[in-house]
Amino acid sequence: MTIRAEEAVARCRRLASFSEDAQGTRRTFLSPPMRACHAEIATWLKAAGAEVSVDAAGNLRGFYGGARSQAPRLLVGSHLDTVPNAGAYDGVLGVVLAAALLEALEGRRLPFGIEVIGFSEEEGVRFGAPFIGSRALVGRLDEELLNRRDANGISVRKAIENFGLNPVEIPRAVLQDDTLAYLEFHIEQGPVLEALGRPLGVVEAIAGQSRMEFVFLGRANHAGTTPMHLRRDAIAAAAEWILAVEHAAQSDPDLVATVGRVEAQPGAANVIAGEARVTLDVRHKSDDKRARVAEALVRQAEEIAGRRGLSVRHSLLLNQKATAMDPFLVAQIEDAIRKTGCQPHRLVSGAGHDAMILAERVPAAMIFLRTPGGISHDPAESVEIEDVAKAIECGLALLDQLANSSEFQKRTRRA
Amino acid sequence: MTIRAEEAVARCRRLASFSEDAQGTRRTFLSPPMRACHAEIATWLKAAGAEVSVDAAGNLRGFYGGARSQAPRLLVGSHLDTVPNAGAYDGVLGVVLAAALLEALEGRRLPFGIEVIGFSEEEGVRFGAPFIGSRALVGRLDEELLNRRDANGISVRKAIENFGLNPVEIPRAVLQDDTLAYLEFHIEQGPVLEALGRPLGVVEAIAGQSRMEFVFLGRANHAGTTPMHLRRDAIAAAAEWILAVEHAAQSDPDLVATVGRVEAQPGAANVIAGEARVTLDVRHKSDDKRARVAEALVRQAEEIAGRRGLSVRHSLLLNQKATAMDPFLVAQIEDAIRKTGCQPHRLVSGAGHDAMILAERVPAAMIFLRTPGGISHDPAESVEIEDVAKAIECGLALLDQLANSSEFQKRTRRA
Repeated sequence: MTIRAEEAVARCRRLASFSEDAQGTRRTFLSPPMRACHAEIATWLKAAGAEVSVDAAGNLRGFYGGARSQAPRLLVGSHLDTVPNAGAYDGVLGVVLAAALLEALEGRRLPFGIEVIGFSEEEGVRFGAPFIGSRALVGRLDEELLNRRDANGISVRKAIENFGLNPVEIPRAVLQDDTLAYLEFHIEQGPVLEALGRPLGVVEAIAGQSRMEFVFLGRANHAGTTPMHLRRDAIAAAAEWILAVEHAAQSDPDLVATVGRVEAQPGAANVIAGEARVTLDVRHKSDDKRARVAEALVRQAEEIAGRRGLSVRHSLLLNQKATAMDPFLVAQIEDAIRKTGCQPHRLVSGAGHDAMILAERVPAAMIFLRTPGGISHDPAESVEIEDVAKAIECGLALLDQLANSSEFQKRTRRA
Repeated sequence: MTIRAEEAVARCRRLASFSEDAQGTRRTFLSPPMRACHAEIATWLKAAGAEVSVDAAGNLRGFYGGARSQAPRLLVGSHLDTVPNAGAYDGVLGVVLAAALLEALEGRRLPFGIEVIGFSEEEGVRFGAPFIGSRALVGRLDEELLNRRDANGISVRKAIENFGLNPVEIPRAVLQDDTLAYLEFHIEQGPVLEALGRPLGVVEAIAGQSRMEFVFLGRANHAGTTPMHLRRDAIAAAAEWILAVEHAAQSDPDLVATVGRVEAQPGAANVIAGEARVTLDVRHKSDDKRARVAEALVRQAEEIAGRRGLSVRHSLLLNQKATAMDPFLVAQIEDAIRKTGCQPHRLVSGAGHDAMILAERVPAAMIFLRTPGGISHDPAESVEIEDVAKAIECGLALLDQLANSSEFQKRTRRA
């Protein structure tokens, strides 16, 4: 398995060289290097016995048939686009691991076919809107998104045509009724597994997200002539609330809350601030809990402001719902991780992934690989060979479990 | 006294019309409107029996002699320059009140002469260096300051010459040995007297000031994928310290401490801040106390940063010593305030004043007038007629006290 893992890492590094930039990796939606990326992966998939195609949304698809001709299919994959100045593993590793699983089957057929998918777009870099590839699979690559333009005025539709694809055929990219589930391997992009010393984790949910802005309004005044008890200091009020945000988030290990931006006016060392503007980002696997936390933090801001003789106003910038991963698949993945000799760990993904979109239509699940230093979206992004080996081992064990699972067979019959 | 007070307020408003700007008041060091301002005040002083001159530093001086020809002198005044978009009372009121006191004496002579002084510069607007006028009186209008240039490249020396004065004569502006003390009436520019419901206060010290910058260094990270306990959030650390600053300052009514500027990097709503930059302004009448507070806040920043896995560095921007007002004069002013039927209140001035400079060479004291809303450096700056009347009444009582004080007579003999 170590040889397969070394091969997988080498493939990721090779794919990183297909870039729009001479220095560093940048591969956006249907940019020229994406064609070379497709061609490279297609050779591996074909060699493993899959039929390869590119759908009208630019997704690379490689179908490895099941034991019988009408067998349903299991989707396994991730995205092939990258951020600018990217690492070699975000997204790409999930597609490379799917190909490695086909190879590891060595021609063996399962009760279901396996469709490897490399999504054309997940990062939202070129058009400022993410998930173009996976939205096509759930029927949401709509007119609004197709008409969206990049910095050069080229629309998504035009980019598809320029790549030699036909936007009229996008509906044919939609998930077929025989699709059992979607599985995605992905680097964690966070420090949790590393801190626990575990190579693999299973995602139980992709967190919902509230993003807000708060403005504390006090009274600007002379820092020398205004005694402490007569101040309406917007920075001090904001500081008290920032600590309250941190404290609230520490109450639940699945909750994160962040004040990432703070600005004060007039912003002079010798003037008490009259205004402080701060952002809030709250994420949790439960939308109810997230809404309750956000609401409590609004009330707390009002209480702090009121007690200090200030006012506060807030505005909602984003309200994105949480997505649960399929509980059956989550449990199966935990078993598969144990079979590799590792302790599984359930995580909530704080970042969005293609699995979040696919979950709208099919059971979906994700396996996270430990990310050294939690470093991602950076050329320093890395993975450990042993962790990749464990991921392949886990994937094979999972395929066998699913092939032998009466629960999964029932799903197969339903499909 | 109300008539004198109304006249004083009317005079302040008239002087506010002598401005470099068509709209609003702006009268910087030896600018053209300063000449008209001098001429206006000179007519009042001459009518009250004073000999008027302008010294080589541009200070307007009106000497009203004492009962005997060799009598020493008491200096009374404030500054005649203004900030841009100024109010009508900051500085000017102190000169107008000094003139009103001469008028209220109605020719009566005291054991000491009174020299009314209108300082040419206190705000530091034109040359970025304050106290040009009062520095001349203590012999510190030195070469470095004389060579300082304004935005048009004109030096202080050249500005003096352009006004028709001779920089060579600056040493003659230095305080004469017969000077007993310096008295200054000034608006408080803060909310303390208003909050206490008292028209007048006596300044017991002009606070010293420490100004510093702190940089908290943590680690920027993904707001969604980094759990709370693995963060090194620079904004949260800074917030905890900002509250510690506020808490420390609340421990002593004479202490003020302010964080007026806060900036964080990278400053995105969905990224944990890796760096937070904050300023600190600490003022107290005791330099020891101020140094101890600043040192304690540095240690607290280090403790907070260390506990949170961050580092912090700090730099000193300003370290200005406190200036005590003369205790004898402070007590005399308290008595004089009581004679007007008001309760005196001792204040520490958080802002600098000419009295701070004069105190280097002679006993100095200040009387503060209540400032409605604490508003200053703004066209909305105002005073109550009754408070101005109380100030004149207090000033007259004080002159009589000093004239009859054996303590002050002793000083007279010393001079």
